[in-house]
Amino acid sequence: MSHASFSPVSDVLLAPSLQRGPGAEPLQRQLLQRLRAAILTGRLPAGCRLPGSRPLAEALGVSRNSVIAVYEQLSAEGYLEPSRQGTRVAELRGGGVVSVMPQQASPPAPRMQTRPLAGRVERVRSHYGAQDGAHAFRPGVPALARFPMPAWKRSVDRAYQRGGVATLGYGDPAGEPALRRALAMHLAVARGVRCTADQVMITEGAQEALALCVRLVANPGDIAWVEDPGYRGAQTAFECADLTVVPVPVDASGLAVPQGAWDAQPPRLVYTSPSHQYPTGAVLSAARRLALMEQAQAHGAWIIEDDYDSEFRHAGELIGAMQGLQADAPVLYVGTFSKTLFPSLRLGFVVLPAALAQQAQTLLQETLRGGHRFEQLALADFMESGQFSRHLGRMRRLYRRRQQALREALARHLDIPHQVLGGDSGMHLTVQLPPDCPDHLLAQAARAYDMAPAPLSRFALMQRADCNGLVLGYGNTSESQYPALVQRLSALALQLQGRALRRA
Amino acid sequence: MSHASFSPVSDVLLAPSLQRGPGAEPLQRQLLQRLRAAILTGRLPAGCRLPGSRPLAEALGVSRNSVIAVYEQLSAEGYLEPSRQGTRVAELRGGGVVSVMPQQASPPAPRMQTRPLAGRVERVRSHYGAQDGAHAFRPGVPALARFPMPAWKRSVDRAYQRGGVATLGYGDPAGEPALRRALAMHLAVARGVRCTADQVMITEGAQEALALCVRLVANPGDIAWVEDPGYRGAQTAFECADLTVVPVPVDASGLAVPQGAWDAQPPRLVYTSPSHQYPTGAVLSAARRLALMEQAQAHGAWIIEDDYDSEFRHAGELIGAMQGLQADAPVLYVGTFSKTLFPSLRLGFVVLPAALAQQAQTLLQETLRGGHRFEQLALADFMESGQFSRHLGRMRRLYRRRQQALREALARHLDIPHQVLGGDSGMHLTVQLPPDCPDHLLAQAARAYDMAPAPLSRFALMQRADCNGLVLGYGNTSESQYPALVQRLSALALQLQGRALRRA
Repeated sequence: MSHASFSPVSDVLLAPSLQRGPGAEPLQRQLLQRLRAAILTGRLPAGCRLPGSRPLAEALGVSRNSVIAVYEQLSAEGYLEPSRQGTRVAELRGGGVVSVMPQQASPPAPRMQTRPLAGRVERVRSHYGAQDGAHAFRPGVPALARFPMPAWKRSVDRAYQRGGVATLGYGDPAGEPALRRALAMHLAVARGVRCTADQVMITEGAQEALALCVRLVANPGDIAWVEDPGYRGAQTAFECADLTVVPVPVDASGLAVPQGAWDAQPPRLVYTSPSHQYPTGAVLSAARRLALMEQAQAHGAWIIEDDYDSEFRHAGELIGAMQGLQADAPVLYVGTFSKTLFPSLRLGFVVLPAALAQQAQTLLQETLRGGHRFEQLALADFMESGQFSRHLGRMRRLYRRRQQALREALARHLDIPHQVLGGDSGMHLTVQLPPDCPDHLLAQAARAYDMAPAPLSRFALMQRADCNGLVLGYGNTSESQYPALVQRLSALALQLQGRALRRA
Repeated sequence: MSHASFSPVSDVLLAPSLQRGPGAEPLQRQLLQRLRAAILTGRLPAGCRLPGSRPLAEALGVSRNSVIAVYEQLSAEGYLEPSRQGTRVAELRGGGVVSVMPQQASPPAPRMQTRPLAGRVERVRSHYGAQDGAHAFRPGVPALARFPMPAWKRSVDRAYQRGGVATLGYGDPAGEPALRRALAMHLAVARGVRCTADQVMITEGAQEALALCVRLVANPGDIAWVEDPGYRGAQTAFECADLTVVPVPVDASGLAVPQGAWDAQPPRLVYTSPSHQYPTGAVLSAARRLALMEQAQAHGAWIIEDDYDSEFRHAGELIGAMQGLQADAPVLYVGTFSKTLFPSLRLGFVVLPAALAQQAQTLLQETLRGGHRFEQLALADFMESGQFSRHLGRMRRLYRRRQQALREALARHLDIPHQVLGGDSGMHLTVQLPPDCPDHLLAQAARAYDMAPAPLSRFALMQRADCNGLVLGYGNTSESQYPALVQRLSALALQLQGRALRRA
C-alpha cells in the first residue's frame, strides 16, 4: 500500500506537519485531535476509508502504535468503525456536515437565557442579603474570635488518628453513632429533649434538616404554617418542596394561631421557634405550646420545633424544649451547630419520633448519603471531652454581657422612638422603629459603615406597619463598638426621618 | 402574710420537702419543676393565687431570690401571670385539667405509625442494600487503603493554619473560590470541560448536585429520562422532586433513544453517564452525543452528564466530556470526589452554563448555605500541590491492574456461561449471567462470604431478561483475593442453577 492510495484523506491527515519539540503536545494526542476535528467538521465524511496504520505512521513520522491507539480511541468514541476493508469514518448524523467545531468558536447557539427556569427557583429570593465584607451586627453569626480553635483542632486531629482508613468510606447515613449518642445525651440534659441516639439524624445544618422533615411527612400542595415575621429559610424549604405556605402572626407570647385556623387551613406542618422566636425573641407561652400540640395531634399535623439558639438563655433557667413536654409529642426537633460552634462546620440535626427514624435513615441514605465523618467524629470528641459544654458556658456569659451592653447603648444613643423587643436569649436584639424610618433604607445606609443588621421587614410575609426595625446580631460584634455604632445608626435614622419629613 | 394565707397551695408547694445534700438537684430547680408539674397536671388550677415570695421562701427554707427567679421563669414560660393581687396561675387550656405529665408516663397518644408518610418517601426505596460489614466487590468504593492519608492530613492542617478564624463563618455558598479555580483548571485539562471557576458549584457529593440541577431547571410533572439500566440515585433525585421518570434503554453504544421519543415524551432533563455508562460500562458514541445535544437544543431540554469515574480510563486516551464538545452546550456536568478521593469527604460539583450560575448561587445560599470550608480549602491545597493528580495517576494504574486481574479470574474461574460487559474505565466490571441464575439470590448468598457485589437487576427500571448479572466493584478489593472470590461466586452460581434445574 502506497501513500497515494489514501490521497483524499492525506490533505487532512498530513498537513500541516505535526508539531515537534519541547512544549509541543504529544504526537499521538495531536493526531487524535486532528482526526476527531476533521470528522466532526465533515472534512472526513462518513464512510471515508482511512489509511492503514503502517503507511500513515510512516507518512506522519510517528510510531505505528500511536496510530493504532488513535484508531482504537476514536472507534471507542464512535467516530470510526472497523470494517472488512479497514477502518472507516462512522455515520455521525444523517451523513450531513456537523456544524460543531470543537475547540473553536461555535455558531451562535440558542441563548440559554431564553429558556425558562424552574418555577421553584423563580420563587426563591435571596433573604440573606449581600455577603460583602460588612459584618457588625450581622445576625446569626456567633463570636468567631472566641471559638477555641486549638481545642477544636485537637479534636480534629484525634478524629483522623482514631478514625483512620475505615472512616474514608461510606458510613451511617444518619450520622456517626458516637456523635448521635453524645448529642442525645446533651439534648436530654440541656434541653429536656426525650430521645435516644437512634432518633437523632445528623444533617447539613438546620436548613437540610427542614428539607428532610418536609420530604418525610409532607406532599406537594400540603399546607405549612410559618411564623410571621419569622425565619425565611423555613419558607424557602417549604416552597422548594411545593408546599403552600400560610403565614401565622406572632405576638409577645409567640405564634398566635387565629381562631378557626385549624379548620380553615389545616396544616400538615407547623414551623415554630418556641424558645426564642426568630426574630422577635418571644417565648411561646405554655398554654399555646399545649394547645398547639393537642391540635396537631387531633389534626394529624407535625410541629417543627426550631431550637436554633436556645442554649443561650440570659435570664432565669433554660426554657425546656416543647418536644420534651410529653412522650410521643408530634414534634420534629431541629437544631444546628452553626450558632453554638461555627457556621462553616455546617452540621445540624433533627430529632424524630421513633416511628419516623427508620424511614428517615433510608431517605438520607438515598439522598445526602452521610459523609463528613471526620468532622462528625471531631465534634463527638469535642462534646465527650467536655469542651462543648465549656464553650457554651463561656459564650452564654459573653452574649449576656453583650446583650446588656447593647441594651444600654440603645437606651443611651438611639435618639429616635424605638422599642426593644423581648429577648432574654440568643445573639440578637430586635428593635422596632417608627414607620417613617424605613428599615431597608436604614440597613442599606448602615452597610457603608461596616454594619450588616437585617431589616425586620425582611422577615415579614404579610406587610405590617409594626414590622419595621432592625435585627441587631451582637454575637460577633464586640461590646466596645456598640456606643459608636449605635450613635451612627441613630444619625442615619434621623437623616431618613428628616427626608421623610421634607417629603411630607 | 402568714403561711395560712396560702393553704390551698401549700400541700402542693411544701410537701414533700425539697431534697437537700450532696447529689440533690439545686433547690431552685426542684421548686421550678414541682411548680410547673403542679400547673400542668391541674393540681394548681388556673387563677389560683400563689403566695408571696418572702413567705414561700421561709416555708421552704430557700432564699427569696430563688422563689423570685422561679416565678419569673414560669411567667416567661406562660405558666404564671403577674396580677395586681400577686402572682396567679395562668389559663392554660380552656381551664380544664391538662392530661400531660412531664417526666412521667403519658396517656397513650395517637399512634404515630398510623399517620401517613409523605408520598415521596414511600416512593424512595433503598437501592444500595444493607451497609453491613461485607465489602469485597462493593461497587463505588475506591481503594481506601491506598489513599495518601498523610498527604491529605497535611493539606487539612494547612487549611486550618491558613484559613484561621475567618474560615469559621459563612462563605461563598457556591464553594471556596480556591477550590472552584483549581477544579475548573483540572476539568479543562483532564476532561476537556469548558468552564470558568464561576460556573463551578461545589455540592454535597454528586447526589446533591443532581438535586440542585432539578431545582434549577425542572418543575413538578416534568419528564426526566434516565438510563435503563442505570444509576438509581438519579431516579431518586428526580422522584423526590416529583418529576416523571421515563426509562430509556442502554445498549453497547450507550443511551439508545427510541425513534419518536423526543416528540412522544419530550424530556425536560436527560440523565446520562456517557464516558462510562453505569453499570454497563458502555461509551456513548460520538453520533449519539451529537444527536442528543442537537435534540436537547431543539426541545429546550437539559442534559445532565454524570462523569462519575471517567478519570480512570484504562485503554487509550481519556474520552472527553460531552460538555466540552461545543460551546454553550445544554449540559449540566456533574462529578464527585467520592471516587477519586474518598466517599466520606462528601464533596461533589456541577459545572453549569454561565447563564444558570447566578441563580444556582442564590439557590445554594438559601438552601445548603455552603459550609465545610476547611475541607474545601484542604482539597484546593491537595489539588494545587499536585497531590491530586499524582493520586489519580497511581489509582489509574492500580485499577487497570485490578481490572485485568479480575478479567483473568473471571475467564478462568467463573464456570457458568457469562459475558463481561464493555468497560475500559473505572472501578467495576459488569458480568451478565444466564436467567436461571437469579442475580439477587446470588448477591444475597455472596454476602455470607464477605462479598457485596450489586445485582445488575437492581439497576433496571423495566424488567428485562438480559438485566441479570453482577456488578463487581474492584476498587477496594485487592487482586490477590480475586481467584478465591470468583471461585466462590462460581460455586454459588452453580448451586443456584442446580436448584433451578431441580425445580424445572
